[in-house]
Amino acid sequence: MGSLQDQEIFENGFSGTIKPLDPEEFRRQGHLVIDFLADYYKNVEKYPVRSQVEPGYLKKRVPGSAPYDPEPIEEILCDVKNDIIPGLTHWQSPNYFAYFPSSGSIAGFLGEMLSTGFNVVGFNWMSSPAATELESIVMDWLGKMLKLPKEFLFSGGGGGVMQGTTCEAILCTMVAARDQMLKKIGRDKINKLVVYGSDQTHSAIQKAAQIAGINPENFRAIATTKANAFGLTAQALRETIKSDIESGLVPLFLCATIGTTSSTAVDPLGPLCDVAKEYGIWVHVDAAYAGSVCICPEYRHFLNGVENADSLRFNAHKWFRRRRLLPQALVKALSTYPEYLRNKASETKQVVDYKDWQITLSRRFRSLKLWLVLRSYGVANLRKFLRSHVKMAKNFEGLIGMDKRFEVVVPRNFATVCFRISPIEIGGNYGQIVASEEETTNYFNAKLLEAINESGKIYMTHSVIGGVYVMRFAVGASLTENRHVNFAWKVVQEHANQLLTM
Amino acid sequence: MGSLQDQEIFENGFSGTIKPLDPEEFRRQGHLVIDFLADYYKNVEKYPVRSQVEPGYLKKRVPGSAPYDPEPIEEILCDVKNDIIPGLTHWQSPNYFAYFPSSGSIAGFLGEMLSTGFNVVGFNWMSSPAATELESIVMDWLGKMLKLPKEFLFSGGGGGVMQGTTCEAILCTMVAARDQMLKKIGRDKINKLVVYGSDQTHSAIQKAAQIAGINPENFRAIATTKANAFGLTAQALRETIKSDIESGLVPLFLCATIGTTSSTAVDPLGPLCDVAKEYGIWVHVDAAYAGSVCICPEYRHFLNGVENADSLRFNAHKWFRRRRLLPQALVKALSTYPEYLRNKASETKQVVDYKDWQITLSRRFRSLKLWLVLRSYGVANLRKFLRSHVKMAKNFEGLIGMDKRFEVVVPRNFATVCFRISPIEIGGNYGQIVASEEETTNYFNAKLLEAINESGKIYMTHSVIGGVYVMRFAVGASLTENRHVNFAWKVVQEHANQLLTM
Repeated sequence: MGSLQDQEIFENGFSGTIKPLDPEEFRRQGHLVIDFLADYYKNVEKYPVRSQVEPGYLKKRVPGSAPYDPEPIEEILCDVKNDIIPGLTHWQSPNYFAYFPSSGSIAGFLGEMLSTGFNVVGFNWMSSPAATELESIVMDWLGKMLKLPKEFLFSGGGGGVMQGTTCEAILCTMVAARDQMLKKIGRDKINKLVVYGSDQTHSAIQKAAQIAGINPENFRAIATTKANAFGLTAQALRETIKSDIESGLVPLFLCATIGTTSSTAVDPLGPLCDVAKEYGIWVHVDAAYAGSVCICPEYRHFLNGVENADSLRFNAHKWFRRRRLLPQALVKALSTYPEYLRNKASETKQVVDYKDWQITLSRRFRSLKLWLVLRSYGVANLRKFLRSHVKMAKNFEGLIGMDKRFEVVVPRNFATVCFRISPIEIGGNYGQIVASEEETTNYFNAKLLEAINESGKIYMTHSVIGGVYVMRFAVGASLTENRHVNFAWKVVQEHANQLLTM
Repeated sequence: MGSLQDQEIFENGFSGTIKPLDPEEFRRQGHLVIDFLADYYKNVEKYPVRSQVEPGYLKKRVPGSAPYDPEPIEEILCDVKNDIIPGLTHWQSPNYFAYFPSSGSIAGFLGEMLSTGFNVVGFNWMSSPAATELESIVMDWLGKMLKLPKEFLFSGGGGGVMQGTTCEAILCTMVAARDQMLKKIGRDKINKLVVYGSDQTHSAIQKAAQIAGINPENFRAIATTKANAFGLTAQALRETIKSDIESGLVPLFLCATIGTTSSTAVDPLGPLCDVAKEYGIWVHVDAAYAGSVCICPEYRHFLNGVENADSLRFNAHKWFRRRRLLPQALVKALSTYPEYLRNKASETKQVVDYKDWQITLSRRFRSLKLWLVLRSYGVANLRKFLRSHVKMAKNFEGLIGMDKRFEVVVPRNFATVCFRISPIEIGGNYGQIVASEEETTNYFNAKLLEAINESGKIYMTHSVIGGVYVMRFAVGASLTENRHVNFAWKVVQEHANQLLTM
């Protein structure tokens, strides 16, 4: 093998046996994959939603080393079908109701294709002006759709940026807040900084604090209660802050959530911002889940109070407001300007260089995707689409209400229903287990959910809220229609029947 | 408008006027975009490489708000052609020689399509087993192609992960190293930690240190010299470390680079690892640029010494080695396990949950892309492809050598040539400017580069190395053939002729 490889060094010239971007070959193979995916969507309903493979399944089907010689695309697609698809959990299945569904769309897909095809790396304006300018424009579009205060928009001195993920968005914001504060109180106080959230706040915030070097002991997951619908109360926040200040700590950052991951609970923005303001705390609004539905006027009230927040995140997008000299705080914290990136446009300060608004240097032309989605569907259809999810969730909630063995555990705010088999039903059948009624109920609901998911017919996930194990039914997959919701309910009932008569 | 919107709330049902993922519509629109992109590649050579638009050009062509009603894809593609393409800097042009080119390929594109199409969010094994397992498999494939020591592979107790970007990769590694050290010396010492690189190290490392809460005063960009080909010497590293320890600081992390961004210089891994080992410093190898070419046996020697490093990054991929209980240090630093993510597979510890190997929770099915690339081209063609880039750069270097007005400023290691008009040539024509000869030369070369880029015929970027302004000619765009290199040289000469006779 050694001599073969040594020989290669001499044998290849500019003859161009490899044309990795030949337009006609691109066309041919591209069409093949489009058809492959169209057929996948046509059949996705038939696959078990949650993958049924065992850990390590793929190692048995795939060689241990990369091939030396090229392989044809047809063969690779065959392997995708036979080896990869069985190992997928089908997030695009209409019977997918787990976590929060990732609602794919044709327009989104096409936007990704264009972005991948142009393959520009838009770290600064110069490296591809359209990438930066379109992003600023669609961020303002989105801000207007959400009726954000003017100071959040570029046109009002603020501005938005598309981040790769939630976690990056939070981390950037927190670093900006941290550095602003450390400049005031001195770097040696970094161990005194405190970050606030509730026990329902997304784990990303704790991870971001951890990465940013905040003392792990200074992350406050303030307890919520059923009485307050698992929202963080202003009173609880104030008490925690006061006690921290008494201990010589420095309150830094509050994350308020509109639509928590466990139960889609809503933190009351207005009162929380009032408290935060008093203590000079940066308020970041995490509207990752429920932000989108706020483009419908009837849901916009959930964002009331945002005018006093410092930053807002919504899916992969984020805005900064002007008041606290933002986004300047962000740029200050994240800016780098090595020689090889210097250019006239940046020096005139007429342009945004998005590399300074994020962790990473390089970035995809992300706004193409959002631009295509907004134009292909228009505000009208996007609202209809979101409302149809809420309606389907309402329908599911109604079905639960008609079966007295079940209960909805927390009030439904959006398109996610948290429910379980009620304790009473179980008492009769599982009374022999020596455990508290609550433990028994939790155990039984967990068993029911696992049986449902193992069937492959539908896929839901769970959470534990205030000690109660709940099944989460999250509507949002793009192919889901009301008939799938009705089918899902039948699947739940059938498995409950089986378990309850065991 | 208010009443129109209020009415909507009542008018839509489950009638499904919106089918955002209809398979046949997906097929139709998908084919349209494939043809659009194939035509783009066919014509990309004709566009000015660097975009010629002025800041703010797009605002004048695009409405200020999102459309209320849907728009057809045909119209949107028209706008992409008329409004977006002029604002692109064409990274896929065969005449693109700027920064480091992003070499797109058909296989890579198809992999992205499949990943986007399946749209799974593979944060843990359960959420899509194939995504995790394929990633582990291809990371081992790649590790073997690079002949990494066994401890870097999953099969040897280490393991690899695909990160979104360079900066994320470095940040993760640094946080793991930081927390390991703080556990030993106490959190209150965070301001004592020191991070080492050279003055040629990528700015991402300084930014990562900044985000991770390392005191900005404790980032050492150790000076390099032309005498050492701009590589970091073990002696300089040792002296800096010693002086830091004398000042009561704690050496933490060294980034050694194989192929720096400015001039593709190589830090000598072996001697640097020896010094680092002595002081218990984490060694991270940044082989982002030159790592790939090390799959060719004749370049592998640049990685010699990697057996004593702790982590290695190479493009968007990263390996951790076993010796220092890695990747456990990483998982320890980045792990979160909220209730809604709990699942049987994770609890058995039989599986990798990649969310704990990175900053973000969610992640794309990234390995599909790499898998398709490795299989479509095979090791054989990938080597040929990389060698053809080096050959073309050599050719360019040869052309420079034949024109005595020019000089190659630093020795070429890979496929990037750093060159300039020599001081002597300029003396005669720009002598009237009151400045040192070096300043005059730099000024003149900057002027030449700007004139070349403004022509739109080719695009190069610059750097300043050891005070010398250089033009960087980086071969790597997938469509580049030797004729483009010859053409580029003609463009350089023509512009030089013009300026030198002005």
